[in-house]
Amino acid sequence: MSHGDVDPEVEMTSPHWMHRDAGSRPRTHTFWRLERWRSSMLLLVGVALCDLAPGCSATDTDIALDAKATLNHRIQSLDLLVFVFLLALTVLTIWLFKHHRVSWLHETGLAVIYGLIVGAIIRYAGTSATLVHMQVEPQGVPTYSDKLPPDTLWFRYPVNQTNGTKQPELVHTYAYVFRGQVHDVDENEIDLKATFDPEVFFNIILPPIIFYAGYSLKKKYFFRNLGAILTFAIVGTTLSAFLIGGFMYGCVKLMPKYLSSSFTFLDSLYFGALISPTDPLTILAIFNDLRVDVNLYALVLGESVLNDAVAIVLSGAIQNYGEHYSSTGEFETTAFLRSLSDFFSIFLLSLMIGAAMGCLTALMTKFTRVRDFPLLESALFVLMSYSTFLLAEATELTGVVAVLFCGICQAHYTYNNLSEDSRQRTKQIFELLNFLAENFIFSYIGVSMFTFPKHHFDAGFIITAFICAAIGRAVNVYPLSWLLNIKRKPKISSNFQHMLFFAGLRGAMSFALAIRNTVSDERQTMLTATSLIVIFTVVIQGGAANFLLNWLKIPVGVDDETEQLNNYQVHSVYNSMDNSHPQTSDGYLQDVEGGGVNRGKMRLSGGTDSNLDTPVDGPNGSLGGASGGRRRNSHEKAILARIWGNFDTKYMKPLLTHSRPTLLETLPVCCNPIARLLTTTQQLTQDGSEFRRVDSDSDICIDNDTGNGLSQDATGAGPGTGTVGVGVGRRNSLSRVGGDHRNAYI
Amino acid sequence: MSHGDVDPEVEMTSPHWMHRDAGSRPRTHTFWRLERWRSSMLLLVGVALCDLAPGCSATDTDIALDAKATLNHRIQSLDLLVFVFLLALTVLTIWLFKHHRVSWLHETGLAVIYGLIVGAIIRYAGTSATLVHMQVEPQGVPTYSDKLPPDTLWFRYPVNQTNGTKQPELVHTYAYVFRGQVHDVDENEIDLKATFDPEVFFNIILPPIIFYAGYSLKKKYFFRNLGAILTFAIVGTTLSAFLIGGFMYGCVKLMPKYLSSSFTFLDSLYFGALISPTDPLTILAIFNDLRVDVNLYALVLGESVLNDAVAIVLSGAIQNYGEHYSSTGEFETTAFLRSLSDFFSIFLLSLMIGAAMGCLTALMTKFTRVRDFPLLESALFVLMSYSTFLLAEATELTGVVAVLFCGICQAHYTYNNLSEDSRQRTKQIFELLNFLAENFIFSYIGVSMFTFPKHHFDAGFIITAFICAAIGRAVNVYPLSWLLNIKRKPKISSNFQHMLFFAGLRGAMSFALAIRNTVSDERQTMLTATSLIVIFTVVIQGGAANFLLNWLKIPVGVDDETEQLNNYQVHSVYNSMDNSHPQTSDGYLQDVEGGGVNRGKMRLSGGTDSNLDTPVDGPNGSLGGASGGRRRNSHEKAILARIWGNFDTKYMKPLLTHSRPTLLETLPVCCNPIARLLTTTQQLTQDGSEFRRVDSDSDICIDNDTGNGLSQDATGAGPGTGTVGVGVGRRNSLSRVGGDHRNAYI
Repeated sequence: MSHGDVDPEVEMTSPHWMHRDAGSRPRTHTFWRLERWRSSMLLLVGVALCDLAPGCSATDTDIALDAKATLNHRIQSLDLLVFVFLLALTVLTIWLFKHHRVSWLHETGLAVIYGLIVGAIIRYAGTSATLVHMQVEPQGVPTYSDKLPPDTLWFRYPVNQTNGTKQPELVHTYAYVFRGQVHDVDENEIDLKATFDPEVFFNIILPPIIFYAGYSLKKKYFFRNLGAILTFAIVGTTLSAFLIGGFMYGCVKLMPKYLSSSFTFLDSLYFGALISPTDPLTILAIFNDLRVDVNLYALVLGESVLNDAVAIVLSGAIQNYGEHYSSTGEFETTAFLRSLSDFFSIFLLSLMIGAAMGCLTALMTKFTRVRDFPLLESALFVLMSYSTFLLAEATELTGVVAVLFCGICQAHYTYNNLSEDSRQRTKQIFELLNFLAENFIFSYIGVSMFTFPKHHFDAGFIITAFICAAIGRAVNVYPLSWLLNIKRKPKISSNFQHMLFFAGLRGAMSFALAIRNTVSDERQTMLTATSLIVIFTVVIQGGAANFLLNWLKIPVGVDDETEQLNNYQVHSVYNSMDNSHPQTSDGYLQDVEGGGVNRGKMRLSGGTDSNLDTPVDGPNGSLGGASGGRRRNSHEKAILARIWGNFDTKYMKPLLTHSRPTLLETLPVCCNPIARLLTTTQQLTQDGSEFRRVDSDSDICIDNDTGNGLSQDATGAGPGTGTVGVGVGRRNSLSRVGGDHRNAYI
Repeated sequence: MSHGDVDPEVEMTSPHWMHRDAGSRPRTHTFWRLERWRSSMLLLVGVALCDLAPGCSATDTDIALDAKATLNHRIQSLDLLVFVFLLALTVLTIWLFKHHRVSWLHETGLAVIYGLIVGAIIRYAGTSATLVHMQVEPQGVPTYSDKLPPDTLWFRYPVNQTNGTKQPELVHTYAYVFRGQVHDVDENEIDLKATFDPEVFFNIILPPIIFYAGYSLKKKYFFRNLGAILTFAIVGTTLSAFLIGGFMYGCVKLMPKYLSSSFTFLDSLYFGALISPTDPLTILAIFNDLRVDVNLYALVLGESVLNDAVAIVLSGAIQNYGEHYSSTGEFETTAFLRSLSDFFSIFLLSLMIGAAMGCLTALMTKFTRVRDFPLLESALFVLMSYSTFLLAEATELTGVVAVLFCGICQAHYTYNNLSEDSRQRTKQIFELLNFLAENFIFSYIGVSMFTFPKHHFDAGFIITAFICAAIGRAVNVYPLSWLLNIKRKPKISSNFQHMLFFAGLRGAMSFALAIRNTVSDERQTMLTATSLIVIFTVVIQGGAANFLLNWLKIPVGVDDETEQLNNYQVHSVYNSMDNSHPQTSDGYLQDVEGGGVNRGKMRLSGGTDSNLDTPVDGPNGSLGGASGGRRRNSHEKAILARIWGNFDTKYMKPLLTHSRPTLLETLPVCCNPIARLLTTTQQLTQDGSEFRRVDSDSDICIDNDTGNGLSQDATGAGPGTGTVGVGVGRRNSLSRVGGDHRNAYI
């Protein structure tokens, strides 16, 4: 132990506001520092100190500690307040933009820009608050019996007395809590600015965003395009990650900079993994505003939702490989395989936990009558969804992935069991949470460009990163589209491919992954490059998406169809993608169907036969729809989607929701006792009005099957259950629900 | 500096999960410890360690640190998971109870009981995880130039190498962050269990509860009973606090225990302040279920909401007095006066900040058309409400108080400007948040009885505390009721007084204040007593409330009237408390009115003239209502309420909402230009349908005035604006809104 400098050095340390579990996260020993923009607070501080100064009973030190604690709390509140005001400002400006139909700047772009402005103000207007650190050593002769440093240090410090006369014998013991490793002891960071624990992103900000993404996936088109989406998300993201990683590594090694020495292949792979996931946000909002083609929408949304999940697991596996498996830094086959198995097992287990919790919620809501009390029901829904995240984290899986698949299951099953009130409430709550979280993260990206202490600008690296990101996206889209188009029936046209390429904005997930680990110079450079890529793509690409849609002549203004996308999609139009149109007498539904048809006429390759715009009677239409579906089924639907849809309709939905056919009909006869147990009376005893209600549920949850690929199942079951005759009733109740929901949507 | 024991002692330290700003809060240097119930996690841990163990590139210490960080994160997730499951369980059981109409146990009681069970399991099933602490001293010769201990300690620790050969020259520097003072260095706490930072209550749990209380205050009856409520809340709470404090002090001093020496008068005053606020929760839920008399409801709700605010400020002032003003511990007049001025200035300033932010939101929503985008509108609403809390905290005021009055203003003004969608969304969101937060806090009270390390059982103190709490409540209720009854017209009957006394459950606020500071033995004893009082009152008193209501013959089953209470009250029935009944042709409203009348007939002293149950035409009724209101006005309404209502109708509402009369009519002519600026075209140009819509808004926000005390204003303005003629239209739209909302309520 060297005895050296003792004078408390001037240093800045962590504010840990909003800090949930600092230092408690694997593999990030980053040590956060902060600068406080006291200048704007001097007045308040002055008042506070005056308030606290006079006549004291405690020691000077106690008083000073109190004052400091108070000040810290106020600074933390102020920090948060800045972001809250920023968000409020963003909201008001978004409104102005929407009001005046400004389409070249989206709300997330706006949040970023405001963030940049405020960040710059904070940086240049603020003065540094200096915090003190001291080098310590163990008392007496140290015996380092443990591998680990102690969890807390107890430090005896002489306390100043009130009356001015120093009595050094009065000594208090203070506790210090382990925070993390100090990597650059000599670093002289003078101008460090506000930030907060990056784990907040993973534990507070991302979960609602990802859950909402799952909860609002347009299931019908999602499952229709399942093959393409999975290809893009899993194969594409992995491919893109490795390609970007390799390319970056090559480029960096060519650079004459210092980076070439310390920048490992793993680092560049990690960068590839974090820059690969795309953010749907801005593009989808524009798609939504413009009512763009639903298949394109489903592709972009589905891919971006899933590739977030893939990227987070992939980056974890890469990190793991580097830290635990590879002992030499060179490529090792066993370590690589172990990482690979990590990747798949974590992904699949997380998926299963998420799905299981979603199904559990569905069972709870099916077999209890908790729907009689919507508040309880909503609370249960929220609690179960949140516990999915916690459960995955507690079992060392990826909470974000679990929450995504939980969201999908909640939407697919539980939603159908919920009362109308709960449906709306859960939808609205997560919509709002999603909105706030998204805008917060983008504001933060903007602010942190100026205030985050660990930015490391390297022009060469940044330019390379931009190019690589574009190449990675291209590799993700074009070859895979070509591959998919070999088999795929409604081919992904080249214009769609360009749009998919262009829709590769980088967003929250990339940033969160980049800021998670900023220990080394390389990681800091990556963070800077990632932030810039995010800002550029969100502001510039997001702004230009509109023009590009025009330029590529991608059909927009697809009426009502895509409007429902945002509207949870579970009420998505029955059969609207088929050429048969089971129209009802309801005006609203006709609109919707018309929209679907228009879109179909405009572009869809399948849109050739019987493009009827005139209403047809329900039962006829229903039968027509079924036969139409059957006809085009074999070549339009991916086999994966078909198998899944079949299983889903036959077993999952009867088990988890109140839908028909029941398990009594789908399970073999020998299982009847069990099937009876798992079938509610509500499922069995359906009189006229009740039937309509329940059936509207089942319509909602099986519309992606009955209406399209799996019509044979539905019609197969039909004669047994007598569903065909009440086609009008079904569709009426469906459109009513849809109508109810329309107002709830901005 | 004494050189002494160096061996890392076995000690437990903080988990800081959910920990937002540890140690950053004034005057609580408590140092939280935890026990982890690893037993339930051994399997998982084993898996984790296996995963992390093999072939390493980093040092052993790094690996071990990683594993530990991972473990910590998982334990934190598990901690939270326990509470989330507990809540889910509570929700399901509540549903069962409601389903089977069990009335002797309320959900909060249930949450407490489940909490106790789980707490006991954790305590007796869990084994202690041992954390290590080490005594340190500065490197070299210390120069204590500063009053304050350093913010961080840097600690050099030799790191174990992978290959087993210890190379002591490899030393890492770790950072330790200041946490707080260690008070009992020698304390040998073996069985310390899980807890979390008490500031979480004040910064995360309480704000939504309090905001919701403000947002859902039944304004009409609240303002009608304003005088009584303010008397009970401010005078009563202060009185009760000082009385309990004095009495406790006397009793404790008589006790032969050790307490008598260290228990100061300030401590007992603090106890008085924290045990005085009542929690409306359970009682109101029962009132609500039973549809109890609205005046009683308003008294209980209004009082309990306000006395929370009073208590938090009062306890802050007492604490301040002890720590900063009183240098001797004896009574000092100047210090007392300073605390008193603190109390009032903090309370009033917090109130003003809250009200100002509420009004600002109202202005924002009035003068922008952000209502066209309900999501943006809701986001703005939430952000502004939250920023109120932050603003108050940042200026060293009381965020909870600010949020309460912000909530009241939001309900009173902003709510009227919101779109229908936002109204429902904000209502539902805060309802859900409130529900979750409340049940969490009660679960936590239960769990912490067993797991909180700082409980200190003292039978004498606890018994005394129970008696004092009862006496304090009695002093709050009976003498003040007697005093109020001198002037008050609908007198508070003795049965009501008994019920008010009995409704004095202690809840979240008492517990939060008690757990905020547990540094000394006295404070720990207080916490234990408070926890027990809370548990007892919530479970036993809450359970017995039902029977007592019967026994005291307090009218219940007041139809629909009170049901609307929960339902945000802004749609509360027009004129239902008056004897004139402006009935409409709408069946639902008739029900409601009927309910009001029944209640009026049953008990209200004023219920003598013209108790019509038959519908009367709208316009007639409207006029009748106005005249009826005018007639009974002078003696039924408190002067305070009248002045405020007058001002509110004339200036505040026209300014902040779209209500009539506009400022153009109420302001003097000279102010016309300004008035014109502050009046929206929506306020001025009201055609038939538009008028109805807007007017339904204004009905909603002025129903407590026009319908009752301030009818002269409404009718005075009436001829000028022509409102009388469209009475039916107004009421129709009102009842429609009410009808829409009914389903949203459990």
